[in-house]
Amino acid sequence: MPVRDATIDDLDEVAAMIVELAEFEGAPDEVAFTIDELRQHLFGPTPAAQVLIATPADQPDVVAGMALWYRTFSTWVGRPGIWLEDLFVRPEHRRRGLAAELLRALADRTTGRVEWAVLDWNQDARALYDGLGAEPVTGWTRYRWLPS
Amino acid sequence: MPVRDATIDDLDEVAAMIVELAEFEGAPDEVAFTIDELRQHLFGPTPAAQVLIATPADQPDVVAGMALWYRTFSTWVGRPGIWLEDLFVRPEHRRRGLAAELLRALADRTTGRVEWAVLDWNQDARALYDGLGAEPVTGWTRYRWLPS
Repeated sequence: MPVRDATIDDLDEVAAMIVELAEFEGAPDEVAFTIDELRQHLFGPTPAAQVLIATPADQPDVVAGMALWYRTFSTWVGRPGIWLEDLFVRPEHRRRGLAAELLRALADRTTGRVEWAVLDWNQDARALYDGLGAEPVTGWTRYRWLPS
Repeated sequence: MPVRDATIDDLDEVAAMIVELAEFEGAPDEVAFTIDELRQHLFGPTPAAQVLIATPADQPDVVAGMALWYRTFSTWVGRPGIWLEDLFVRPEHRRRGLAAELLRALADRTTGRVEWAVLDWNQDARALYDGLGAEPVTGWTRYRWLPS
């Protein structure tokens, strides 16, 4: 299977891909996690998020990409869904369908919505999402508050 | 205390406010939850979301509004935050600070981000959020996928 659940043995690779994704997104300075925080919140007793790992079909020991996600809830739909926080495929493994495979693996885990945010300029990613039948949510503005 | 955690005794009021909010948002036809789904996902053994109830200072038995939220996780921040799915104050209880009180009660529950989405045309709400110091997140497009 080219998609599997991450274990604590993947912690360093997951941490590396978070940084690689932030660099790709042009925001390396935004990354402030520590490895202890990541271990606790992904692999501790009450995980705040989970990770799927993509491997190339012919290289099961290679970590080619990941989908980091957590459970959501929609009052309109009346059921839990999934928020995809980070989707990343390493450059040398792109254009082989791994991102779509990660998305489909997430879809298999919910009967509700699968949602995520994409940088407006990331046309390659948007073409992939459009091709899968995902749709931009328009008419809403996301707000962020960091009161502490 | 004008803000408290909802219990299963609040189920009918919460369900009513979800519909009232959808009507205010001009989307009553989007609401598809059943009361059994809501009971299970809010008050079952593994809740997908939680609810804060606002009451007027002088009427502790009156349900004036609510904040329905669930836990998130930011890889950049390295810690859990809160997604505010539904914020609603009933019309007769507005302009008395209850929405801000609900938001501050959420902020007290996390050291991470508090985030939500607002309809672009809802200027009253946006003025409140701006006044608290929350900021619109720009440059990203939200995608939604309902593959099933």
